[in-house]
Amino acid sequence: MKDETILLAHGSGSRLSHDLIEKNLLPPLTNPLLAKLDDSAVFDLSGLLAFTTDSYVVSPIFFPGGDIGKLAVCGTVNDLSMSGATPLYLSLSFIIEEGLTLGELRNVVGSIKDAAKEAGVKIITGDTKVVNRGSADKLFINTSGIGVIPTGVDISGANAKVGDKIILSGSIGDHGIAVMSQREGLKFSVPVQSDCAPLNKLVSEMLEASRHIHCLRDPTRGGLATTLNEFAQQSGVGIRMEEEKIPVHDGVRAACELLGFDPLYVANEGKLIAIAAPNDAGKILAKMKRNKYGTEAAIIGDVTAEYKGKVILKTRLGASRIVDMLSGELLPRIC
Amino acid sequence: MKDETILLAHGSGSRLSHDLIEKNLLPPLTNPLLAKLDDSAVFDLSGLLAFTTDSYVVSPIFFPGGDIGKLAVCGTVNDLSMSGATPLYLSLSFIIEEGLTLGELRNVVGSIKDAAKEAGVKIITGDTKVVNRGSADKLFINTSGIGVIPTGVDISGANAKVGDKIILSGSIGDHGIAVMSQREGLKFSVPVQSDCAPLNKLVSEMLEASRHIHCLRDPTRGGLATTLNEFAQQSGVGIRMEEEKIPVHDGVRAACELLGFDPLYVANEGKLIAIAAPNDAGKILAKMKRNKYGTEAAIIGDVTAEYKGKVILKTRLGASRIVDMLSGELLPRIC
Repeated sequence: MKDETILLAHGSGSRLSHDLIEKNLLPPLTNPLLAKLDDSAVFDLSGLLAFTTDSYVVSPIFFPGGDIGKLAVCGTVNDLSMSGATPLYLSLSFIIEEGLTLGELRNVVGSIKDAAKEAGVKIITGDTKVVNRGSADKLFINTSGIGVIPTGVDISGANAKVGDKIILSGSIGDHGIAVMSQREGLKFSVPVQSDCAPLNKLVSEMLEASRHIHCLRDPTRGGLATTLNEFAQQSGVGIRMEEEKIPVHDGVRAACELLGFDPLYVANEGKLIAIAAPNDAGKILAKMKRNKYGTEAAIIGDVTAEYKGKVILKTRLGASRIVDMLSGELLPRIC
Repeated sequence: MKDETILLAHGSGSRLSHDLIEKNLLPPLTNPLLAKLDDSAVFDLSGLLAFTTDSYVVSPIFFPGGDIGKLAVCGTVNDLSMSGATPLYLSLSFIIEEGLTLGELRNVVGSIKDAAKEAGVKIITGDTKVVNRGSADKLFINTSGIGVIPTGVDISGANAKVGDKIILSGSIGDHGIAVMSQREGLKFSVPVQSDCAPLNKLVSEMLEASRHIHCLRDPTRGGLATTLNEFAQQSGVGIRMEEEKIPVHDGVRAACELLGFDPLYVANEGKLIAIAAPNDAGKILAKMKRNKYGTEAAIIGDVTAEYKGKVILKTRLGASRIVDMLSGELLPRIC
């Protein structure tokens, strides 16, 4: 069975498609909503809902600390969480290149199962397409997700206020460097693992500590610098951060120095940035530090009336410089 | 501008990504929910909801009667409609191969806009990834959708009852033959156009005529035969249909004869099959015939206690044969 590969006919809606789905995809993920196999999943839900989508094209599909399946669940769970939503349901859509082994697909589905279990979300609807060799790169996954926003929560990139504190949940750059080093076959003396993780429980604990969290976002593509620029522009404020407050693991720092990358622009998949009212930042930070995904959390800066729409970095040497959005391509296909 | 092409950096989360989204993707599709550009779209909704996903990998991306953009909207709108839901919101996720022209992308986005307008749905959240040349085939699109199910509607592939009538909304095979002939450069004397269309208004009119519609499905991959087999298996009943009642356009018939295809297995993208209580089938049919996507609708058979889990076709010559699911690959990448 291990050497079986996926064929074009597995995506044709034929008996082979049905077999692939019923024998390999459904059993690990099954739940009463998914098992109905109708064109849509149907469920009762009421309130303020959040809806998000992401396609995952990471290369290679397996990397230190995760794979495309774990990433596809965590990424979408995190996008929902960044609206303050409690993630509930995911859709799961595969685009498979003919020739992917069934073993590889099963491993990815296993990771999806584990990540969904940790996050407490259910996969309730799906789709599988197969394209001919050379028309895709092994496997692409789309997940879309639905969550429900607790009453009183109002989080948006446009909500930052002058005086607010910038909280970062941990070290930056781990995911991008882990994927890049796996892809390029680089070995560093300090190995780097992807930080890929579901952050929904961290967010719900932060919201227990305070409802005065104004902005939340996970700094994925474009890294910390690009996400802070988005906040500065959406909210029409300035953002000032201090370099020495930003946690960077030694392995990431060494890899970045060697390769000429700036960790501020390298992607993360298990980190978040929160912008919160100054009086509540301390208790939010304290709560974060007790969650395993927030042990290295730190207040790294604040929101200013000066430098509207810009991000300013105070360096270790005391100088200040403008940190722009990522302008070109740094590391392609890291998510 | 027409010769500009998409680069890897357009998918990196960089300034180029932001420009692509803000100048080319947002303006045609914009609405207040999409324009917020947060990680999730947020909206109030209550009731029995339907959620579905599909990735579209059709090749070529432009074909007679439509393109991948129109298909991506109609396909997901139709999947929601087949649960009896009123489609409301779609997500939209692009996987673009480096080198696609901006002109091609704009044309696809224009089709998305038009199809969404016709169906009355809003695109409220999205994602754009770019992969290097040779790692995808021009453009893949995922759409996921959310709809709300009117009270009293209970539609599932498992709901067919002995005695029910099988209603088909029109001719079969048009989409599959249109895409295949474009891909292979075949010219037929009677040109075939894809039937790609949003069926949500047709479905809502059918539900006005009767709430005793038990099953609905659009016969896409695998065609009419595969969908009827799914119903027979999910409901544990037999299905009997009459060949002479099934509408097939001359161009499709000629192409199928020439190429050795059976139209029963060729994909459709603007057709539906309804299984309804016998007493209500006539009034449902009458209503369908007044909608532009149902003018050729016909009752093509009924649900039987015999032949549980199987589909029987009574041929023009009076013989009966078992019509199985599609077993291998017929026409790859038609959706």
